[in-house]
Amino acid sequence: MSQANRKSSIPEATVPRLSQYLRKLQEIQSRDVTTISSRQLAKEVGTNPAQIRKDLSYFGEFGIRGVGYDVDRLISELKKCLGLWRSWNVIIIGAGKLGTALALYRGFQKQGFNLIGMFDADPGVVGRDRGAGPVMHVDGLEDFLKKNDVHIAIITTPAEPAQPLIDRVTRAGVPSVLNFAPIRATTVEPAILRQVDLSTELMILSFHLDK
Amino acid sequence: MSQANRKSSIPEATVPRLSQYLRKLQEIQSRDVTTISSRQLAKEVGTNPAQIRKDLSYFGEFGIRGVGYDVDRLISELKKCLGLWRSWNVIIIGAGKLGTALALYRGFQKQGFNLIGMFDADPGVVGRDRGAGPVMHVDGLEDFLKKNDVHIAIITTPAEPAQPLIDRVTRAGVPSVLNFAPIRATTVEPAILRQVDLSTELMILSFHLDK
Repeated sequence: MSQANRKSSIPEATVPRLSQYLRKLQEIQSRDVTTISSRQLAKEVGTNPAQIRKDLSYFGEFGIRGVGYDVDRLISELKKCLGLWRSWNVIIIGAGKLGTALALYRGFQKQGFNLIGMFDADPGVVGRDRGAGPVMHVDGLEDFLKKNDVHIAIITTPAEPAQPLIDRVTRAGVPSVLNFAPIRATTVEPAILRQVDLSTELMILSFHLDK
Repeated sequence: MSQANRKSSIPEATVPRLSQYLRKLQEIQSRDVTTISSRQLAKEVGTNPAQIRKDLSYFGEFGIRGVGYDVDRLISELKKCLGLWRSWNVIIIGAGKLGTALALYRGFQKQGFNLIGMFDADPGVVGRDRGAGPVMHVDGLEDFLKKNDVHIAIITTPAEPAQPLIDRVTRAGVPSVLNFAPIRATTVEPAILRQVDLSTELMILSFHLDK
């Protein structure tokens, strides 16, 4: 199967698990382990072996019965599948506490995400280093996007400015947005939008707590 | 249908959308709008009317054809369903930038989540106010949990201490955990675990960007 065909056959819900397998395998690789069974991997990520085998079956049959998967090869296949064979340029808009926390997160660069700029509207913040060089003013956003190939814009502003900023970056050609602002944001296709929402997470917990 | 029966019929994937409808309806309510059609609500949240009607059908047929939903009543039903008819006590463990950003997020209290304590292991942070009164030392965690009814523990520590802390709070009886630390955490049932993971979010984007 070609890479493109293989990817289109992978269900959306499988992708977060593949990401978790990759990171667990990278940790395992750093302990100099070279092969791993679906049972061992399942134990490490807290799932069941059948789920692992099903998820990895999208990559063809390269696990060997009774031996397991070659860790290096599995990592390389997962990285290819997840688009991590190359690097992606990222900007953060909103250099407050959340934006700074994300900028300082070390796992970021390790996986090939290059944080190439941070933006804020507050003159008291512009020019300071919040983890990715001097913070730039949002007025210069379009100019920066013209000169730099930005693949992902992370939005960590308060609610009010978030949607207009998302509109600005996608209009300027940024193909994907990860929104942390507490709004239900929208984008126009083909832009890709993911949202991380504290309120929703808390409500999912209270839904279950109240059962 | 009783509340319990009704809740158990709601699919997991519907809950985040109900949370979004609730917050949009609260915003609409604050603009003194009293009824809303599924078409209007769909436009506001960026989905389609059929999805809205399907999601709200779990609450019985209280939308009126041609008129729409009563905003107050729909809010009240959604709050009941999402367990927001009551309040929940929350602690944050990890009073760094991310923990502080979450503590200062104003939407928190508004929905009935009471932040009753923050914990950290760093003596330089303990005693300072990071948005929820003086930060306590994690050594006092079990003692605090014995004296206070905590429903949700939010973990915003680095990777290393996260799993042991999750084990400590669940052993002490905290029924749910929201983990922001960059690990694939686990809990033992019946504890409920949700994870927000920057790496996974970025990898989902790169998966789609590379298609």
